[in-house]
Amino acid sequence: MDTLAVLGIDIGGTNTAFGLVDGDGRLLFEATVPTESDNGPATLMGEIHRLVEQFKRQNAAVTIAGIGIGAPNANFYTGHIENPPNLSWGTTDMAGLVRDIFHLPVYLTNDANASAIGEMLFGSARGMEHFIVITLGTGLGSGVVVDGKLVYGSNGLAGELGHNCIDFHGRHCACGNRGCLETYVSASGIVRSAVELLGKRIDPSPLRDMAAGDITAEMLFNLAVENDPIALEAFDYTARLLGVSCANVAMLTAPQAYIITGGLARAEKLFFDKTKKYMERHLLANFRGKIKILPSGLKENPAILGSAALAWNELRENGNAKGQQ
Amino acid sequence: MDTLAVLGIDIGGTNTAFGLVDGDGRLLFEATVPTESDNGPATLMGEIHRLVEQFKRQNAAVTIAGIGIGAPNANFYTGHIENPPNLSWGTTDMAGLVRDIFHLPVYLTNDANASAIGEMLFGSARGMEHFIVITLGTGLGSGVVVDGKLVYGSNGLAGELGHNCIDFHGRHCACGNRGCLETYVSASGIVRSAVELLGKRIDPSPLRDMAAGDITAEMLFNLAVENDPIALEAFDYTARLLGVSCANVAMLTAPQAYIITGGLARAEKLFFDKTKKYMERHLLANFRGKIKILPSGLKENPAILGSAALAWNELRENGNAKGQQ
Repeated sequence: MDTLAVLGIDIGGTNTAFGLVDGDGRLLFEATVPTESDNGPATLMGEIHRLVEQFKRQNAAVTIAGIGIGAPNANFYTGHIENPPNLSWGTTDMAGLVRDIFHLPVYLTNDANASAIGEMLFGSARGMEHFIVITLGTGLGSGVVVDGKLVYGSNGLAGELGHNCIDFHGRHCACGNRGCLETYVSASGIVRSAVELLGKRIDPSPLRDMAAGDITAEMLFNLAVENDPIALEAFDYTARLLGVSCANVAMLTAPQAYIITGGLARAEKLFFDKTKKYMERHLLANFRGKIKILPSGLKENPAILGSAALAWNELRENGNAKGQQ
Repeated sequence: MDTLAVLGIDIGGTNTAFGLVDGDGRLLFEATVPTESDNGPATLMGEIHRLVEQFKRQNAAVTIAGIGIGAPNANFYTGHIENPPNLSWGTTDMAGLVRDIFHLPVYLTNDANASAIGEMLFGSARGMEHFIVITLGTGLGSGVVVDGKLVYGSNGLAGELGHNCIDFHGRHCACGNRGCLETYVSASGIVRSAVELLGKRIDPSPLRDMAAGDITAEMLFNLAVENDPIALEAFDYTARLLGVSCANVAMLTAPQAYIITGGLARAEKLFFDKTKKYMERHLLANFRGKIKILPSGLKENPAILGSAALAWNELRENGNAKGQQ
């Protein structure tokens, strides 16, 4: 019998990863190509089409039912990618373009929303109706699920927790505002916290011998494991602000869990427990003790699985998992 | 032909208002009784039942299809009121109690959530799928609507924007936390801001001749209209914090509008425009210029209409608007 699969595509500033994923979240095929956004989206998608067709010629028993795409500033409603920050495309009708190349149904959303659907179908949120995914990479992304459905909101762009203002006198953000959560809680945010702490505290630290621009979150992780006081306080401060934000959003949507993913989430042991402690402290009494903080359940290729999950979810909801034009 | 109506009940710390509301939001009958919570909820609901029966004897053409109740700490899922702050009942199975007295379907939620459904069915949010109601009374309540449905979350208690922490070194809140939004943005919050400003600023003001405990939001409104600098800055500060909070929540759920209700919202001219200005400033670029700030569309008895709307909404969704036991 034919295996039904969807194509998941995760478009990044440097590379684009894609793969075929079956209905149980198994990856049948995966590859990565340079995004080379200067060549335009049609060139990129043409190359992906070529590689997928090549795979299909060798695996005739796989039928592709649809395509899910995760990309920065991707609008679920319009199918457009709207002025993505790390790509030179301007606003692109990506769903239309990909549909014309593959002749399959195409769905797209931003990468954090795709992660949320990935966790719901194949990861830590299986069986949950109410949860929130927070991705901690260079920035902070989020996807909010209410009553088993991702919240896209009136403009298709909901879920931008990273730009929640936590201090309007606070840190400058690339978006033009100040005090955005992602300037504190992200791989780049924790580095900024460490740099501030080098000014505030007087402890000796190997960080004092480095240029601010050379410090990375990974270095801070390694130093925190060795009990460097600056690095430890940077993690504690990050966990505190994340915990307060988790409490704030929890009182709005009352989720069963937060799922924390992305590069910084690899420091799970250093800051999940602290995040939970601060979250509990800031919750109203009748919300306490009920909300989990979980790592991702998507161990391999979470970005491809998330994009694929978007397609599976839509195809199942629309009742046309057999594929449509 | 019989008129179909629902009974809306709004339970307050001092008084309980109730009324019969038809499917177009017309109030057929209304009354208020003292809550007298020391006598227990059964006494209160018995009295309401007596008055409703009295009305029905004189108006045989009205059929009651169900009951909606708005109350503090009311849990939509359980039908319980959980340790309400201003009532001496402890936790009560209010839905069960009222069902036993009236033999009608009973729905309850907190008063801000009921307001949100009231605005959706009969008020400013008619036709909207995504909006948020913020009630500014002594505290700050909120109800979030996503995809045309009120967000109750996993515990039935979602929508507590008033306890979002905006400054963890900030004002002490009755909930035990610090920096809760309602300690700034509410009738009591704006008074606290004015008191702080009396310490911070040196302008002369009639407020300097009063005890802090005697200052009211209404006084501040009257003084602001006369250009008292303390009162004006108190309104500006309130609008700023409300605007930032509106921006924060908007980036999560992407609503079409905020509807601001409650006592402090009567100062509409003084602070709706400012709230909007601050909200816009704190939104990401692709959210700007799209979100309205509106006053309530429920001019009379918004609390009864909100509670009634809850019942209408559930009866329509469950397809049993003809009434059930």
